[in-house]
Amino acid sequence: MQRIPKSTLKRLALYHRCFLDLKKTGVIKIQSRELSTIMGVDPATIRKDFSHLGELGRQGYGYKVEFVLSAFEKILRIQDEEKQKCIIVGAGNLGRALINFFTSERFQSNVSHAPSELVAAFDNDLTIAGTTVHNIPVYHQSEMVDYIKAHNIKYVILAVPSYVSQVIVDSFQALDIVEGIMNLTSSIINAGDIVVHEVDLALELETLVFTAIQEHVSHHNTTIKDVLDL
Amino acid sequence: MQRIPKSTLKRLALYHRCFLDLKKTGVIKIQSRELSTIMGVDPATIRKDFSHLGELGRQGYGYKVEFVLSAFEKILRIQDEEKQKCIIVGAGNLGRALINFFTSERFQSNVSHAPSELVAAFDNDLTIAGTTVHNIPVYHQSEMVDYIKAHNIKYVILAVPSYVSQVIVDSFQALDIVEGIMNLTSSIINAGDIVVHEVDLALELETLVFTAIQEHVSHHNTTIKDVLDL
Repeated sequence: MQRIPKSTLKRLALYHRCFLDLKKTGVIKIQSRELSTIMGVDPATIRKDFSHLGELGRQGYGYKVEFVLSAFEKILRIQDEEKQKCIIVGAGNLGRALINFFTSERFQSNVSHAPSELVAAFDNDLTIAGTTVHNIPVYHQSEMVDYIKAHNIKYVILAVPSYVSQVIVDSFQALDIVEGIMNLTSSIINAGDIVVHEVDLALELETLVFTAIQEHVSHHNTTIKDVLDL
Repeated sequence: MQRIPKSTLKRLALYHRCFLDLKKTGVIKIQSRELSTIMGVDPATIRKDFSHLGELGRQGYGYKVEFVLSAFEKILRIQDEEKQKCIIVGAGNLGRALINFFTSERFQSNVSHAPSELVAAFDNDLTIAGTTVHNIPVYHQSEMVDYIKAHNIKYVILAVPSYVSQVIVDSFQALDIVEGIMNLTSSIINAGDIVVHEVDLALELETLVFTAIQEHVSHHNTTIKDVLDL
């Protein structure tokens, strides 16, 4: 059975976003070469990535925007007909920033295409529990397990302090309902069969630094390789 | 002049992290095949990525951990002998969460290898300006330009509300000191020659969903391609 490689999975959301933008600007059809220029991914990689989804286009003919988008919609509906519900655990600074983000105008304008919908947040702090943030209810942590059961919550965004993250993840494992965790805590979690997607801000910062260094050396008409002189 | 491709640049921080971990666990040398298993990147891609840095290893012999790490240290020092200073603009929920993160124990334990050091934050809110968060001083927004000049700030983490982001980015462009921006606002910014690294949480969430869907279909012994039936 052919599984889609991790590197391709990471680009799927990017392709989806790109085709949504193409549709908005009125593009009907696009060649992999043009797509390559827009996305900064080489044409061979694009063709290989798309081959994992089936016959999305034909060599030399290009990809029809509507057709590719309908394939993405289909994939995102594989699990259910309904939009997947998602909760945030931890409503401190990070959790509140995330609620802010997922209820923002920019996110909402794409929300009909978004694969997941934020429905609630949870926190251990009694002064926070019972409030709402941008119309998203914040419940007490002790209500989380019942809520996941009642609403069949498949996706969790984890934004709690590191020292409690594993305990919470353990409770997901016991439930066997949650399928994916986006981990924004600065800690490594063991989630068994649950898919974990790490968002590592330190890594993102270092990527920025590497990219800026490349710009820096190319302004001096040299390369990182030359500077290293290995 | 050979520039390092964007996709390789994105993996450099990941390689750096991986070799730091290998050193911690006492590994002296590693083959690209073993590295491939650990990182989930295929061996050919690893060899191609590393070729952009020069002769880091030899076919069949593998990579010496200390030697690779010394190359990364060299790259990160290309711009200056000193560690690059970084500021956060916006000290609301997101900004405070970021300060919390970059001053956390986990980040600090790797800080001697981190390419950048958080030195200050800025906010327009007079009730926040003048305070400190985890020992990081928060100054008023009006002091930002002078601070960047005085401290030669090369990297900025942007965590302001969308509607002010471009105005702030414009002030960086006028200064010609800032080289890189990590954009965590949910808005598109125009930064001219300044390198922008977007951290897009909606995209990250969708990547999680795609990954979880692949797990879901493979539990049913099928593939996304089969379900799409294209």
